Amino acid sequence: MKTETTIQGLAASLNPSRAARKIIGFVPTMGNLHEGHLNLVREARQLCDIVVVSIFVNPIQFGPNEDFDSYPRTLEQDQRLLADAGCDIVFAPSVEQMYGKKPRLTNISVGGITDDLCGSQRPGHFDGVAVVVTKLFNIVQPNYAFFGQKDYQQLAVIRQFVRDLNIPLEVIGVPITRAEDGLALSSRNGYLSAENREKAPVIYKTLKAAEQALLLGKALSEVLAEMKTALTEAGFVVDYVEARTTELQKIEQFNEDLVLFVAVKLGATRLIDNLQVKYPAS
Amino acid sequence: MKTETTIQGLAASLNPSRAARKIIGFVPTMGNLHEGHLNLVREARQLCDIVVVSIFVNPIQFGPNEDFDSYPRTLEQDQRLLADAGCDIVFAPSVEQMYGKKPRLTNISVGGITDDLCGSQRPGHFDGVAVVVTKLFNIVQPNYAFFGQKDYQQLAVIRQFVRDLNIPLEVIGVPITRAEDGLALSSRNGYLSAENREKAPVIYKTLKAAEQALLLGKALSEVLAEMKTALTEAGFVVDYVEARTTELQKIEQFNEDLVLFVAVKLGATRLIDNLQVKYPAS
Repeated sequence: MKTETTIQGLAASLNPSRAARKIIGFVPTMGNLHEGHLNLVREARQLCDIVVVSIFVNPIQFGPNEDFDSYPRTLEQDQRLLADAGCDIVFAPSVEQMYGKKPRLTNISVGGITDDLCGSQRPGHFDGVAVVVTKLFNIVQPNYAFFGQKDYQQLAVIRQFVRDLNIPLEVIGVPITRAEDGLALSSRNGYLSAENREKAPVIYKTLKAAEQALLLGKALSEVLAEMKTALTEAGFVVDYVEARTTELQKIEQFNEDLVLFVAVKLGATRLIDNLQVKYPAS
Repeated sequence: MKTETTIQGLAASLNPSRAARKIIGFVPTMGNLHEGHLNLVREARQLCDIVVVSIFVNPIQFGPNEDFDSYPRTLEQDQRLLADAGCDIVFAPSVEQMYGKKPRLTNISVGGITDDLCGSQRPGHFDGVAVVVTKLFNIVQPNYAFFGQKDYQQLAVIRQFVRDLNIPLEVIGVPITRAEDGLALSSRNGYLSAENREKAPVIYKTLKAAEQALLLGKALSEVLAEMKTALTEAGFVVDYVEARTTELQKIEQFNEDLVLFVAVKLGATRLIDNLQVKYPAS
């Protein structure tokens, strides 16, 4: 496994594969890798000839009061995990390598589906994601790009701008990887105190209980209200509890497949999770 | 020469060339071709193995009161001219082929350099250009893309987002092609009455006179004021007369290379032109 830190170095590493028309798979990450990321790499390994993983903590997707500076950077450990998971090339550029010295004037925004859920709490976040992912797509030029469904809204945003801009690749969404107790894996779980880590699986339990209630016929609005109560009583500060169609449109009743979304704060740590609930075939 | 009207058809036509690692040159146009466009094609022909020209009147770069509906569409004549100029593939998609049936949610904006000159008179125009050119770049995936310097601000916008988004191609700016009397070639010249067509070369004469005045040491502000007066007295309605650095930054004095910009209305027709003035080496 090679590690490249420059765009030019990566191009040189990839050119022979490109010339040989190999299938390139790409997993963009911010590092501090866990089993969720590694499952993306394994998925890429199965589908592609060459697997590229980027590790880049992207400053422009963090708000001024967010955790850009403290976001965990664990390159050596990440490299070991990636080698084991079957990655061929790690792309770990500096901020200057990605954004240069001249000011960036270009922005990409995806309307509609970024206005609520995480978008309303994190203004500019999805613009920053869209810009960096577009840049990385243009640098790596993969055939397939792999993203986790844990960041469901992010995945929807990426699918949208890939389609709108005719970016020549296929986006693959990979199901959420969970700890044994149900907590969705996230680099930010590492911020949790031992006590809060024990409490965190309540998020998934709440989602599963809501799924059961919906399948038993309870009204969606009631289910969402109960989720909010359950989370608040368990000690979470609820940012949002929402239901959307799989395409992120608002939904009032459980009359088609839907996704339940939760964002909470536990101590200073913001955690998100979601669960797709299939509408039963009649 | 082939004509493709679908993205899939174009991909099929280009795939053998891509597999053979041929150099692909791309000239995006809105059709109604004149010698200016054909010079772009000839330039591409010299530098590239395969020359693709797109003909697409892009609705999203026209304002609600602009000439989208009446913009001249002359595909058959364009095809003949392109075949003679050495084009290999014409890409002439429909609006639906380019924008699909589902709503587009993604926008690309380039800040700073789109706020004035043509940007202030045509809100959203450069966003529409950035979106369609990015789409076309992703569809054609050329090595080189050719644009005329007549639309100088457009060229600067394209260079900027290509750099900011790491789009893997080189942008080539080609000097303005002029009629014998100096008028910059433009599809919109066809809108001019015979009388106004005779008047139109005053734009270039005014630019050349300004260049002379600058080189003789007249102050920039005075030169700009005189240009405005000369154009107004000749019967033009002046939209703007401006000087900028070659990178489109404001400039107060002629102390480096600069570009003089003119936008005027002549009857109902909006015409633009520009002239680069070299600062004399000391």
